[in-house]
Amino acid sequence: MSSTAGKVIRCRAAVAWEAGKPLVIEEVEVAPPHKVEVRLKILFTSLCQTEVIFWEARVGTNTIVSSHFLAMKLQESIGEGVTDLQPGDHVLPVFTGECKECRHCKSEESNMCELLRINTDRGVMLSDGKTRFYKNGQPIYHFLGTSNFSQYTVVHVGCVSKINPAAPLDKVCVLRCRVSTGLGATLNAAKPKKNSILLFLGFGLLALLLLKGLEFLGLQGSLFFDHDQSACLSAKKFGVNEFMNPKDYDKPVQEVIAEMTDGGADRSLESTGNIDARISAFECVHDGWGVAVLVGVARSKDDAFKTHPMDFLNERTLKGTFFGNYKTRTDLPSVVEKYMNKELELEKFITHHVSLPEINKAFEYMLRREGLRCIIHMEKLENF
Amino acid sequence: MSSTAGKVIRCRAAVAWEAGKPLVIEEVEVAPPHKVEVRLKILFTSLCQTEVIFWEARVGTNTIVSSHFLAMKLQESIGEGVTDLQPGDHVLPVFTGECKECRHCKSEESNMCELLRINTDRGVMLSDGKTRFYKNGQPIYHFLGTSNFSQYTVVHVGCVSKINPAAPLDKVCVLRCRVSTGLGATLNAAKPKKNSILLFLGFGLLALLLLKGLEFLGLQGSLFFDHDQSACLSAKKFGVNEFMNPKDYDKPVQEVIAEMTDGGADRSLESTGNIDARISAFECVHDGWGVAVLVGVARSKDDAFKTHPMDFLNERTLKGTFFGNYKTRTDLPSVVEKYMNKELELEKFITHHVSLPEINKAFEYMLRREGLRCIIHMEKLENF
Repeated sequence: MSSTAGKVIRCRAAVAWEAGKPLVIEEVEVAPPHKVEVRLKILFTSLCQTEVIFWEARVGTNTIVSSHFLAMKLQESIGEGVTDLQPGDHVLPVFTGECKECRHCKSEESNMCELLRINTDRGVMLSDGKTRFYKNGQPIYHFLGTSNFSQYTVVHVGCVSKINPAAPLDKVCVLRCRVSTGLGATLNAAKPKKNSILLFLGFGLLALLLLKGLEFLGLQGSLFFDHDQSACLSAKKFGVNEFMNPKDYDKPVQEVIAEMTDGGADRSLESTGNIDARISAFECVHDGWGVAVLVGVARSKDDAFKTHPMDFLNERTLKGTFFGNYKTRTDLPSVVEKYMNKELELEKFITHHVSLPEINKAFEYMLRREGLRCIIHMEKLENF
Repeated sequence: MSSTAGKVIRCRAAVAWEAGKPLVIEEVEVAPPHKVEVRLKILFTSLCQTEVIFWEARVGTNTIVSSHFLAMKLQESIGEGVTDLQPGDHVLPVFTGECKECRHCKSEESNMCELLRINTDRGVMLSDGKTRFYKNGQPIYHFLGTSNFSQYTVVHVGCVSKINPAAPLDKVCVLRCRVSTGLGATLNAAKPKKNSILLFLGFGLLALLLLKGLEFLGLQGSLFFDHDQSACLSAKKFGVNEFMNPKDYDKPVQEVIAEMTDGGADRSLESTGNIDARISAFECVHDGWGVAVLVGVARSKDDAFKTHPMDFLNERTLKGTFFGNYKTRTDLPSVVEKYMNKELELEKFITHHVSLPEINKAFEYMLRREGLRCIIHMEKLENF
């Protein structure tokens, strides 16, 4: 145990006091972990689009420690009942967990843990319904189970993935959320065969992140469709074979793809959350064997997936994936190994660095779609 | 070669001269097979719902030899270029084929042969665009590539499955279309794990046919939903665990199933073609691992599959299947072996027998939903 074990830790954290307003660096108190919880020291974290969406939408009365999808931490101390982690372990905290006890965790087909599945509304710990963050006695709430914009945080042990201690923490911290989601969506859900043609609808970060991994799959080619011309252009450095903007064609994407691919792509992945893109992703795959994987989060509750049912009879498959079908504790360490084995070029995705006090810059980069991932150095309190 | 090889054969056939009107037993001439065709002697055939639908809908000016989904034949003579079949082989002719040359046939994932895929409009042979059936010089057209209501027929070799000669032909003749479709939809598309709960929406024949095979899968249970009370009742003898009529509940099927199964079925199969049943099939499967397989043929071109896209993010899969994903030549012989190994109780499905001249009775049984399968004995010209 470290010297701080069992004691309240005072540290810096970026707090979102009001929705859509700049985060404020505060000194906060972080309580020790309870049963089956661990307290982690955060070294590096990052930001992704989903985080920005929640930051913009959340009502101001709910003060939260702005937590995050992408983060990297070292474990500081452990609570009662934690048996598979030790202080000093290198870990990745994840916004969705694996309790190892529920039907989902026991199923080899699911990673949607009943206990620790993503919950965007719960700002407290499960064990006692309370937060571990305070400022002058005032509670500050958790977000997405990890709350990584604090130098120390408390997390349920099921949301912590123990990784290879040799992995560079300032690189593998981007392996959370979208990187793993994109990779897993391809490897675990789409499962392209050798010589497949893969179609990505919606460029975003998702598609970019996959490419290095895809080289290992022996694909025949990869196609990208995106309405954003700059995204299409930047695709080049990631080895995309073909990229196109639907605006440049006077016919539906489905027809363009069918002509380019002799009937349809073998696999497609949709990452925009836009309902039309989702339908296109399905209708763009080849009959007989095509698989469309929906990755993006639906934008509207009123969206309805509409397609002609004949498309199903013709042996197309449509499937959803969540966090790339990876189980947090069981599978995520193997994704880190992919980086260690040079199957994933994470460096390509890291375009910016900021210190903790500069954290609002990371939000600005994301809002302007400037660059890909910005690493937030949590121990640094001066400007870069 | 038989003594009739190379000669025109005169035989009896049931001809649909007009849509929806009783078939007429005629003496027809059957030309010898051309290149990559075979001429088959039909011993036993049968009838299924799809056949009745086409018989009712087809315009009267197009005279056809009423061909069929379910049939059983012995090969009589072969055309040039046929290398893997010999006269005397026992075969099953199928409404969809396997050319072994196209992308679909070469893909291990598809059985939707580009050349010989089901075609409900083509009444002629592919090689010369002509029919092989005539009556007094007047052409009579093929249907669905097999035209089995004739004592002899000519079929493309790719639509012929060579089977175990020890298999009783009056039993395995029902192994075509829906029996194989239902079995394959379960084994090849739904792929339930041990202890799964399987849900069938739409009873029809499909569901019944599967059950014996399902015992071998070690299922936890099987549930049936159908609006037809008599179908539900007759399910008992097939070992159904639970069967229910949606009319008996005042809430959506989805909610009933979720309550009965602790969150949803593990796999579902929909066989009605009704769009609401298809949507229910998808929404009734468990998040995390549920797979819904659509088997029924869509009833309306205007049907649109509508569901909330969040259902996909939660790791549900929706897939279509055609002929149970079985390849006609490669896979169908193994289905016959399942019967030989007593994994399929085909006898349960055979409830009626008629001779060729009584063929219209078989249509009546089907229209009245009386019994399951009626075997048509093609050599018999007297009443049973």
